Amino acid sequence: MNFISDNTAGASPRVMAAIAAANDGAASAYGSDTWTKQAERRFAEIFEREVAVFLVTSGTAANALALASLTRPWGAVITHEESHVADDECGAPEFFSDGAKLIGLPGAGNKLSPDQVTQALGRFREGALHQVQPQALSITQATECGTIYTLDEIRALKDAAAPRGLSLHMDGARFANALVTLGCSPAEMTWKAGIDVLSFGGTKNGAWAAEAVIFFDPAKASEMKWRRKRAGQTLSKGRLIGAQFEGLLADGHWLDLARHANAMASKLAGAVQAGGEARLAWPCQANEVFPILSPALQQRLQVAGAAYLPWSDRALPAGLSLAEGEIVGRFVMSFETPAEVVEQLIGVFDAPRG
Amino acid sequence: MNFISDNTAGASPRVMAAIAAANDGAASAYGSDTWTKQAERRFAEIFEREVAVFLVTSGTAANALALASLTRPWGAVITHEESHVADDECGAPEFFSDGAKLIGLPGAGNKLSPDQVTQALGRFREGALHQVQPQALSITQATECGTIYTLDEIRALKDAAAPRGLSLHMDGARFANALVTLGCSPAEMTWKAGIDVLSFGGTKNGAWAAEAVIFFDPAKASEMKWRRKRAGQTLSKGRLIGAQFEGLLADGHWLDLARHANAMASKLAGAVQAGGEARLAWPCQANEVFPILSPALQQRLQVAGAAYLPWSDRALPAGLSLAEGEIVGRFVMSFETPAEVVEQLIGVFDAPRG
Amino acid sequence: MNFISDNTAGASPRVMAAIAAANDGAASAYGSDTWTKQAERRFAEIFEREVAVFLVTSGTAANALALASLTRPWGAVITHEESHVADDECGAPEFFSDGAKLIGLPGAGNKLSPDQVTQALGRFREGALHQVQPQALSITQATECGTIYTLDEIRALKDAAAPRGLSLHMDGARFANALVTLGCSPAEMTWKAGIDVLSFGGTKNGAWAAEAVIFFDPAKASEMKWRRKRAGQTLSKGRLIGAQFEGLLADGHWLDLARHANAMASKLAGAVQAGGEARLAWPCQANEVFPILSPALQQRLQVAGAAYLPWSDRALPAGLSLAEGEIVGRFVMSFETPAEVVEQLIGVFDAPRG
Amino acid sequence: MNFISDNTAGASPRVMAAIAAANDGAASAYGSDTWTKQAERRFAEIFEREVAVFLVTSGTAANALALASLTRPWGAVITHEESHVADDECGAPEFFSDGAKLIGLPGAGNKLSPDQVTQALGRFREGALHQVQPQALSITQATECGTIYTLDEIRALKDAAAPRGLSLHMDGARFANALVTLGCSPAEMTWKAGIDVLSFGGTKNGAWAAEAVIFFDPAKASEMKWRRKRAGQTLSKGRLIGAQFEGLLADGHWLDLARHANAMASKLAGAVQAGGEARLAWPCQANEVFPILSPALQQRLQVAGAAYLPWSDRALPAGLSLAEGEIVGRFVMSFETPAEVVEQLIGVFDAPRG
Repeated sequence: MNFISDNTAGASPRVMAAIAAANDGAASAYGSDTWTKQAERRFAEIFEREVAVFLVTSGTAANALALASLTRPWGAVITHEESHVADDECGAPEFFSDGAKLIGLPGAGNKLSPDQVTQALGRFREGALHQVQPQALSITQATECGTIYTLDEIRALKDAAAPRGLSLHMDGARFANALVTLGCSPAEMTWKAGIDVLSFGGTKNGAWAAEAVIFFDPAKASEMKWRRKRAGQTLSKGRLIGAQFEGLLADGHWLDLARHANAMASKLAGAVQAGGEARLAWPCQANEVFPILSPALQQRLQVAGAAYLPWSDRALPAGLSLAEGEIVGRFVMSFETPAEVVEQLIGVFDAPRG
Repeated sequence: MNFISDNTAGASPRVMAAIAAANDGAASAYGSDTWTKQAERRFAEIFEREVAVFLVTSGTAANALALASLTRPWGAVITHEESHVADDECGAPEFFSDGAKLIGLPGAGNKLSPDQVTQALGRFREGALHQVQPQALSITQATECGTIYTLDEIRALKDAAAPRGLSLHMDGARFANALVTLGCSPAEMTWKAGIDVLSFGGTKNGAWAAEAVIFFDPAKASEMKWRRKRAGQTLSKGRLIGAQFEGLLADGHWLDLARHANAMASKLAGAVQAGGEARLAWPCQANEVFPILSPALQQRLQVAGAAYLPWSDRALPAGLSLAEGEIVGRFVMSFETPAEVVEQLIGVFDAPRG
Repeated sequence: MNFISDNTAGASPRVMAAIAAANDGAASAYGSDTWTKQAERRFAEIFEREVAVFLVTSGTAANALALASLTRPWGAVITHEESHVADDECGAPEFFSDGAKLIGLPGAGNKLSPDQVTQALGRFREGALHQVQPQALSITQATECGTIYTLDEIRALKDAAAPRGLSLHMDGARFANALVTLGCSPAEMTWKAGIDVLSFGGTKNGAWAAEAVIFFDPAKASEMKWRRKRAGQTLSKGRLIGAQFEGLLADGHWLDLARHANAMASKLAGAVQAGGEARLAWPCQANEVFPILSPALQQRLQVAGAAYLPWSDRALPAGLSLAEGEIVGRFVMSFETPAEVVEQLIGVFDAPRG
Repeated sequence: MNFISDNTAGASPRVMAAIAAANDGAASAYGSDTWTKQAERRFAEIFEREVAVFLVTSGTAANALALASLTRPWGAVITHEESHVADDECGAPEFFSDGAKLIGLPGAGNKLSPDQVTQALGRFREGALHQVQPQALSITQATECGTIYTLDEIRALKDAAAPRGLSLHMDGARFANALVTLGCSPAEMTWKAGIDVLSFGGTKNGAWAAEAVIFFDPAKASEMKWRRKRAGQTLSKGRLIGAQFEGLLADGHWLDLARHANAMASKLAGAVQAGGEARLAWPCQANEVFPILSPALQQRLQVAGAAYLPWSDRALPAGLSLAEGEIVGRFVMSFETPAEVVEQLIGVFDAPRG
């Protein structure tokens, strides 16, 4: 019972099949191959517009390249204090941007509010000499707390950022999981709501190592080819990433995978809430469940061999706090988490009521 | 007939099989998986000593991380002016090292001599304030001209670099090709000859995207985990690289692949030299052949659909020069170049003699 | 009546005289001149130990060089969210450190507490891969709110930082102002209390442009000469800075200047507190006074031509808040602020009681 | 007899007087003072057009800021291999530009030719992925060998650089010395000849520490204020630099100082050439003289206490080489080098003919 992360899974069989299919004869190098071109076309279809697409091998690279393209070295990126870019990438955005500053704001469920953004912007005098200049706002969809922004919320953030000319970046490492919950179109969740650049995640959703930086205004991507190359992210055998995306994107496979993971999370979340012993730190809106675990429950989980991560409680909603010995646990469902294993886990949660 | 590069090939069937085998159940993320550990063990065996190994997805990343670990931002790396690190990585070493300088020296066949190194070092006053400080020497084995350094030549370079305390880096993007030509052990071609850090290439030799930075003194690698992470090169599903190396390294498969590629190159080189019309720019010592092509031959190759790259003539040996209309062509053999295709190419070279 | 900043003043006559005296004949360049050497000797005397001293022309450069020497690019510096390094240097520390992260914490009067430091450190897992690594703690003495740390408070911060091996940096742009308030020795306020590296400020205290980065462990300064040179901070005519420090440091002139500025601030603060109309945002402990200004008082100040800066109210002590229309005003006294002008200003504060 | 450098001199009396005059009362900080504004006006007059001016304290900072503003991190600057930016600033241009590459070309007398530039550009495929992109050409006027470019030569370099869109930077650390030799206007030697950005040197010509980065197209300077601030080069008491420039620029004082230094150099050069024993490595065109010194002459100079620097012989003109034991010596004249001391030095050169 491994619920540590969605990156402990391997690749979907369709992804493996696409790689195998792509392994046939010579192909142009450095992303000029037919598989990469095909992925680019699919993204244009999915987002219903011309896009500039840059495939890379890790979410950290995708985010860092995206943010670097949106800021100057004396720029600042407003983001949640526990976002992946702020707290889990060992300073990659600072490295790729040649020293831009990430301004981390608090917020329940790792979500930012327009008022926070406005207030934070108010602390930086526009055009002033002595302070870094806010140039981008980065949000995560779904967040590291498994919550999601509604389309209205995204638009409201854009409105808060727009008066200062900030670009809006979405870290979509779990883009598909958020999308199937909202039930909207990829276009609606991104450029139609104000997103300028998206890190589109494939790895957590059934690929091996496939992420895409997507510019909704291709004109703004003119320098990205050099940025990516110089970062060692331009694979010579680029079809390896192109093929993974073909495996994911064809026939809506990526959405099926996300629906499964989300369903497994819902199943657990429902049981936890019904059970009464554990309560949820945040609502389950994607493929992650964050129950608050009593010491007794922690012990039962350990005995049952259920692997999960203890999680930060900084972003608990107002009114919710941990009792002595309680911790927040993170249980992540992947595209291949079997329903039986989730039921087995639910059994551990339910045990004492037997 | 595609002889553009060894990176236009896909992956060896054994590499594909290893990836498929690794795609089984959950695995620890970020390089703590069993496949990565197994690759690390294999490298220790291959090099006959404890090593610190960092798997990455591109040669550019491997080289840039290696050089960054050997220099300070005010340091300098001495290398050939046409080496991959100096001329083909869009400034990645400068980026990863936070601005260190690459000092490019000329040299026939893209090889450096100890005298050149000594002379170059003489232009930098040791410890002086105003100049960058030479801290590493980077050589390529095999070089971009398909030539190789003998063990004596490597040792002599180390001797030239040692009085100033330079570390010695080997860009081994085509390490296997050089190794099977020399017929020595991996240890002999590296740390026993003075190499401190090696970029071990898998991609050009049958992997999809698998390179390893190998420190022969693990104590010097203490910061590399952060460097790699911050560069977006720490794959969450690290077993993707680990498995590729398992596919390559088990049963000496990597050496078999390199032997094949080299044999194909020798076949072509032999025919070229025997034929009399084209002469070689540099001796064929690995898997690349660089015939000097007359205008007539260029045309025959075009008609025959033989794809190759025109190549720089900066590193021609003394006494060799191009006549009007001649160019240097690069023909690269991969692990999967069929003998029949090479023979077909030889036919194009031979045609006029018929 | 200009109370905008202590950097709107020029240079002390003794500083001017020292520059004039130094302008005599040839001198060695790049800091090897006798005036620089003399400044180094004076710092060793002042701090009662061997020190490594690097003269520069701006406080931003001093701080950024100091912090860069204490962190790796994947390191983090813990500091107050409104400290000069975090909020007033346009990202210079990030630039000089090649991308290290500044972790800004809140705190009344711009002071940090040991508990905050401990708590902040608890959010970074030691040695972990995904997060930047805290490596330095930077405090400001006196702070941007005109408050100062006691020796006990500094030692307690050192104790909080020590378990994680953090170096302790002091931004001493107003070092002299704090020192004369505490009445302790320079050694007591620095290395005896745990400070590793000090930015010693001369500019705000009567110099034109003279700051010194002082390492209390000279062994840790081995790379600074290249850092400073590469940052364009190694003046060719280095005696310009050396002479300014000679003017300041000889005969305790720097302490006299600071005593005057502090006395002027005390005079104003006392009057404000006695007057009753305005209250102080923070206690006046150095050369700055921060009265809370009612709209009426703001208007009287404007009519009287008193120039001051509106100031951030983020660091107000618990229990103190601004009423509608109130602002915090910053009034800074320099080494040359005349007592009469302060009295004139006090008159404006006192006016309505007349 | 100190001929080590023009930076071993102090400041001109007029510069000192201007600083003293500026030390009067409060002034706005960070370059918004009247002295800085006045310097900006003077530069506009001198160059006969609107310019954007950024005052800094060192030539290294001026050059590095200028080049950083002209290149992207994956850009390249073509320059002479022994130019100050390439060889004497410890990598400052690489630091300030976040890793751009300097391409050093050889050339007699440290001058570049248009053909060299064209040839070097030919080695970088325009817009190609794998190589850095040449974006600026940097020349030094007068060069480190005391030679100067004619106006025609500058225009020809611009013509060679223009097809690839390179900006043209002039390192004018000894701008005045070159100008008075050419006898042209500052406008003719810069923007009228194709210069885009100039590092205007004051320090070597009678200031303490005063350099200006001058953009002839102010629209291209929009980001410089942040670059300069972030580099710690925005002095709070900015009038210190403004006043130095006032001292230099008023009444053509800067030209008088340069004329004196050049005259002293001519005097020595004439004597050397007339004397017969020593020959000049390069023609004396500014304020530096580079005689080739026999061992006997080296000894006589040592006995006489004449201080000078041994100099690189890499840029000797074709046909000129050093005999056994000979070295190139650099003798630099400053604004205050007395004629008597030059005559004394000439005596040492002439001695054996007596």
